[in-house]
This record gives sequence, structure tokens and C-alpha cells, in this order.
Amino acid sequence: MSRVFNFSAGPAALPEEVLIQVRDEMLDWQGSGMSVMEMSHRGKEFMSIAAQAEADLRELLAIPDNYKVLFLQGGASAQFAMIPLNILGQRKTADYVVTGSWGKKAIKEAGKYCEARQAARPESFTDIPDPDTWQRDSQAGYLHYTPNETIEGVEFHFVPDTGEVPLVADFSSTFMSRPIEVSRFGLIYAGAQKNVGPAGLTLVIVRDDLLDRARADTPMAFNLAEQAAADSMLNTPPCFSWYVAGLVFQWLKRKGGLAAMAECNEHKAGLLYNAIDASAFYANPVNPECRSWMNVPFTLADAELDAVFLKEAATAGLSTLKGHRSVGGMRASI
Amino acid sequence: MSRVFNFSAGPAALPEEVLIQVRDEMLDWQGSGMSVMEMSHRGKEFMSIAAQAEADLRELLAIPDNYKVLFLQGGASAQFAMIPLNILGQRKTADYVVTGSWGKKAIKEAGKYCEARQAARPESFTDIPDPDTWQRDSQAGYLHYTPNETIEGVEFHFVPDTGEVPLVADFSSTFMSRPIEVSRFGLIYAGAQKNVGPAGLTLVIVRDDLLDRARADTPMAFNLAEQAAADSMLNTPPCFSWYVAGLVFQWLKRKGGLAAMAECNEHKAGLLYNAIDASAFYANPVNPECRSWMNVPFTLADAELDAVFLKEAATAGLSTLKGHRSVGGMRASI
Repeated sequence: MSRVFNFSAGPAALPEEVLIQVRDEMLDWQGSGMSVMEMSHRGKEFMSIAAQAEADLRELLAIPDNYKVLFLQGGASAQFAMIPLNILGQRKTADYVVTGSWGKKAIKEAGKYCEARQAARPESFTDIPDPDTWQRDSQAGYLHYTPNETIEGVEFHFVPDTGEVPLVADFSSTFMSRPIEVSRFGLIYAGAQKNVGPAGLTLVIVRDDLLDRARADTPMAFNLAEQAAADSMLNTPPCFSWYVAGLVFQWLKRKGGLAAMAECNEHKAGLLYNAIDASAFYANPVNPECRSWMNVPFTLADAELDAVFLKEAATAGLSTLKGHRSVGGMRASI
Repeated sequence: MSRVFNFSAGPAALPEEVLIQVRDEMLDWQGSGMSVMEMSHRGKEFMSIAAQAEADLRELLAIPDNYKVLFLQGGASAQFAMIPLNILGQRKTADYVVTGSWGKKAIKEAGKYCEARQAARPESFTDIPDPDTWQRDSQAGYLHYTPNETIEGVEFHFVPDTGEVPLVADFSSTFMSRPIEVSRFGLIYAGAQKNVGPAGLTLVIVRDDLLDRARADTPMAFNLAEQAAADSMLNTPPCFSWYVAGLVFQWLKRKGGLAAMAECNEHKAGLLYNAIDASAFYANPVNPECRSWMNVPFTLADAELDAVFLKEAATAGLSTLKGHRSVGGMRASI
């Protein structure tokens, strides 16, 4: 067996230690005589797996007690719809700061359910507009932004201050890669498939005072208050992904937690950006102040060499370096 | 390692051959150097897994070409909302035949989006009303029923004839346990965790003429037409569950397909019902004509012995025999 260096943006590489444990427990989880895939989600075995995963996630992110943690399905794309349905309440507008492709999708989807205002958007997706220039609505139900844009490689290295307006953030591509000051947010959500586990699990962390606002036609399976009251088991949850995510959380704790991860990730990104900037052959277009630690897009001086580059990279065991089809070039998700 | 006899209704037991293959491929799928959990869903490796699973499913169920097969998230409970949003079109009403707990949930959820009519419901959930007595609306957007009620153990052993009104069926608990005459249906859906694979995957099989009816505010991730156009990859699909389901489909083919499964399941159910009926100690309340081949609820002559029964069963390696909390007693899902 030979494992490749996998630069996929997501689904993405998982720690080998975790995969080994998943493999070893596949037919018999800790003497239960069952695979985790086969367990009733209401049985004591899975309930213990679920509770441990939540406790470890709460510890790693230092989540305050007035926040609920939900383990849902549907991906961040489902949340694009469910956030206005659940959070808007009596408000008519929501503010969106659009700094890349995912922010564009989020505001478009929210427009089905409310007046989704574009509070800020740079001329090109290589920069973050100064928050002092954002055209915010003080009556907005929330302000939504994308802390890291996976495709363009643009990352916020600060948390915007939105005062009384709840801050909502799609952390899909950087969740658990560095600490988050959770108390600054009204709601945090993330597809798990980037850094946490298999695709099909969506984490939602929501301040409990925002849980009484859902529209009457919010689908039951995505009603955050109902799922919170049912410990994310209103319907069958994505049990196996929840289990794998729990093993990743335990691995993160063994590795020193999110402060250690942040240090490691900043260091890795620095090495790559330094190599790109020192070269006349590679280039990255993003303002250095908001370059992503996670997704590093780069171009070659001659785009005709792209195919050769990808082929030789694959031969060297470097997998999935092709840029997203919407922007071209290369991308290393690290 | 000792594997138990697992009678869980879902998530439920998987074939040991499948679990062994999943285990053996966990760190390196077929020389790719990656786990399936780590693969980009748009990479050639996962695309081949996805296509093979769909082809095998189509072969096993003999799905006609004018039906789309979707691999989604959210469970059947999410479909309870998404079916009226996607299928109702200009119609104002939908008919529901309610023969158990899941049908009750389905009609309640549909009521958020349309006039959800109860076309039939027996006095107690131990029987299926004669279709000639159903109070149907000829202008209904569809008629929904639950071919097998998991909790009450009531199963349709026939397909209702609804004429021009599209027939919609929640096959969650019996999907792939026997052949389905797909052409009789407008839409079939099923959570995968009963017979197909891990929780977190929802199969939808929909006739393509029903795909132009979605309401404008249908969430993107659950818009059946958009997901069909994107081969279920409008957003990241539940890749790992899709892969395991594909292995189960291959196992079903090796075992002789769904006709062989039906024979085996009918035989297994017969053994258990015969034992129950021959006993003065065990009882099953369901009309013999609509007893489930899949979920067999039964009671003991003295409910005070329930706890003793469950304890001694567990000691004998018989797991998860407790009945659903809403009805009590025992239940064997076979």
C-alpha cells in the first residue's frame, strides 16, 4: 500500500491514525459485535460515541454553554436555505459579505426567503473590503460571511464586529484548523468533509437565543430548535460520519488542540507562499493580508504547461492539485 | 471478535462480506493511495464508484430509462417536506394513506406546504383499508403511502392503483428487500440505513416528467430537477455511504438479486410468525394479510417479563429486540 499526498479541497485527506482505527473497528466496535454503521442511533453504544464527539468538539473550540452543537445532514448548501428559514425571525433583510464563489451561492439561495443584501463585495475575489466600507443594514436579521473562500483562497484573519446583528459564518473549509472565538458568532456552520470527516455531516453551532425564530414552513429535519431539543436525533443522523468526526476530534486533542493546528497550518502555508513569491514561474493573485492558510491557488507563468505540471505531480505522488474548474490553474489544499 | 445477531430496525446489520471489503480498502481504495472518505467527489475514482453503484441499482430494480436515480442526504424525513415542494406543481392537494407512525409524520410535514388530505387510515395500525374505500381526490398532486410501517410491522403486499395521480412511496424500511415494479410509481424514496448502507444517504427514484414542478423556494440541495441534472453532485454528496451502498448492491447481485432476497425474506418472516402464532406466550396483532416481512413486532403474555426477555436475549447474542418506544413490546427487524 502506498498513500499519496492528497491536496483535495474536500472531501480531503484524513489522519492515517484515524483511518487505521476505523479499519480496525469496522466489524466489531469495542466488543459490541457490531460495526458503527449497523448500530441503532438510539442504542447505548452509539449514544456514547455521539456524546463523546460533542464533548470533545466543545472542549477543542471552547464552546460556551449557551451554544447548541448540532450534527446534521445536507451540507453547507442546505444551510444556505435553512439559515434564513431558521434565523431571520420577524426581520426582512439579511446582509451578505461576498468574497468568493461560496458567498455568491449563499446570497443567491437566501434570496429565495428574504431580501438578501450584498453588504460588501470586492471588485475581484482577491481581497476583502475594509469593514468600515461595508453597507450594512442595522435592522438585518443577521450578517453572513465566508471566513475562507475555498476556490479563490481568500481568508479572513479577523472576525468582523457586527454589534447587535448576529454574525453567521460558513466555516466549511477551515473548521477545526485554528481556534474560533465562538462567542463572537450567532451561528457557525461547516460541512465536515474538509477537515473533520466524511462528506454527509454538517456541523452547526448556534447561540440558543436564536432558536425561537424558525418560520412555520421550515422542514422538520432542518428546524434547528427541534433538532437541538432532540440532540440532533429528530431523525436518523449520519451516524458513521459522526463517529469518524469524533475520532478526528480525539486526534486533534492528542496533537495539542487547535492552537497547535493553527501554528502548523500557518507554517505550512508560509512555506508554500514563500516558494510561490520567490519564484518568477509561480504566482498567487491574492492580497497577502487575506491569503488562505488552507487553500492556495497558484498559476504557472505559461498556462500551456498546466497539463505537464499535473501529470508530473501525479507521478511524484502529489494528487488533486488541479484548480477548481471555475478559476483554472492549480490549487493546493493543505 | 464475536458478531451479534442484530435485530435493529435501522441503522441495521450489513453483510459481513461488505464490511470486510470496506475494512480492507479503508486506507487505499484499489491502489489509489486514498480512502474513499478522502476522495474528491469529482475525481475519476469516486465518479467510477458512483456510476457503478447507480448502474447496479438500476439493474437490480430494473429501473426504466425514464426514471432518474438520486443519491441525496437528509433522510426520508427531509423528503417528507421536499416531495410536496418538488412534485405538487400547480395542484393544491396531496392524498396520504396513513397506516402507521411514519405515514403520520409524512402527512403532518406535507401540511406545511399544501392541503395534505388523509385519504385513508385504519382504526388501529394493524390493518390496511381496502383501496376501494379510500377517499381520494382525483385532482391531487400525488398519492403518498408507506409500503412498510417499521414501527407497527404493517406492509402492503400489493401496489395501489392511483390511475393518473402519481404514486409516491416511502420505501425506507424495505428498499431492496424484494422487487419493486418501478413503472407503477411517480416517485420512490428510501433512507439507506435499513437495508442498503450507512445512515446519511437517501435514495430517490423519480419519473422524469415530474421534474419540472418544483416551487421556486425549494432549497437548492433538495431540488430534484437540479440534482438530477448534476448527477446528485450539485453539492458534495455523502460519498462514503454511496460507496458502501454500491458494495451492498454488488453483494445483492452475487446473492441472486431481489427475487432471491424476496424468497429468503418471506421464508424468514414465515418462520417467525409461525412460531409466534403457534405459541400461547407470544402474540402479533397485525392482520395476517398485511404483516411485514421486515419488522415483526410481538408482545409477551406478561409484559412484566419484557425486561427479563431482553436481558436473556442479549446474553444469547440477540441484540436490539426492544420494541419502538411509542408502542412497547418487542420487535425483530429481519
